[in-house]
Amino acid sequence: MTELAFQDYYPDELSYCYGCGRLNDKGYQLKSRWDGDSDEAVATFTPRPEHIAIPGFVYGGLLASLIDCHGTGTASAAGYRAEGREMGTEPILRYVTAGLHVNYLRPTPLGVPLEVRGRVQEVKGRKVVVEAWIVAEGEVCVRGEVVAVKIPEEMVPRREEGGQ
Amino acid sequence: MTELAFQDYYPDELSYCYGCGRLNDKGYQLKSRWDGDSDEAVATFTPRPEHIAIPGFVYGGLLASLIDCHGTGTASAAGYRAEGREMGTEPILRYVTAGLHVNYLRPTPLGVPLEVRGRVQEVKGRKVVVEAWIVAEGEVCVRGEVVAVKIPEEMVPRREEGGQ
Repeated sequence: MTELAFQDYYPDELSYCYGCGRLNDKGYQLKSRWDGDSDEAVATFTPRPEHIAIPGFVYGGLLASLIDCHGTGTASAAGYRAEGREMGTEPILRYVTAGLHVNYLRPTPLGVPLEVRGRVQEVKGRKVVVEAWIVAEGEVCVRGEVVAVKIPEEMVPRREEGGQ
Repeated sequence: MTELAFQDYYPDELSYCYGCGRLNDKGYQLKSRWDGDSDEAVATFTPRPEHIAIPGFVYGGLLASLIDCHGTGTASAAGYRAEGREMGTEPILRYVTAGLHVNYLRPTPLGVPLEVRGRVQEVKGRKVVVEAWIVAEGEVCVRGEVVAVKIPEEMVPRREEGGQ
């Protein structure tokens, strides 16, 4: 896949997130996209060796982070879809997490690529609810839900002179 | 505080967790302890500059991780208490997360120490439920719940010859 990810449309000043900001070079830089013409969004991520829980298995906090950023990215894409607008057009739609719920169904193996999938449950006012799950070696290991809300005005940094 | 933290009692082979393993030198090494004689457990953690969400605020995935590891650590301490045993005595009690639920009440400021607090809600069979919250500059920013279960036998690594 070479098309831009949802997170690539975030303006620079909102692209430093540790989980998915393209400008955070120490972060995970998660990239979410619609899976073809389906209503599911997908991202892949291979945890680093240090992202360990018990030897052989992935750290649950990292899995929660993947659900989180895949959820807010999918919320942004869903918000634009609901308004019939192309991603990245003004006014920008960027979401933050109000609620994150994760159930760990089975240990997630470390050392293999993980597929993070999501489906929009609800778009209502400032809120988008996204159901998400993580697949490793063909098995669903984690299921979660993200309640995302449009970023409050007071959280948006003032754009710098000369910035985008 | 100089007494050992809950996580310091984990045996070596279960001390590599990215969130709280004392042997994971790239991880957060969270340290949880009872707050004096109270029934609350407390840990402090100062996020690194890269642990950013929106500029000025802490990444939600990190906050979920703190809730997670503080919850499982507190579960371990509560499990020993319920059995009337000293922490670290055999058979060891180590918990993993079955469910993690986090509500972000307000943006958490980046650059200040965070206090992670927890209180045991239930100890029943293999399960311990811990309520947890995160305080920054005197305000509760995050509230969560961890459903922790005793680590399944198949997740425990075989101790190496010569190991503890």
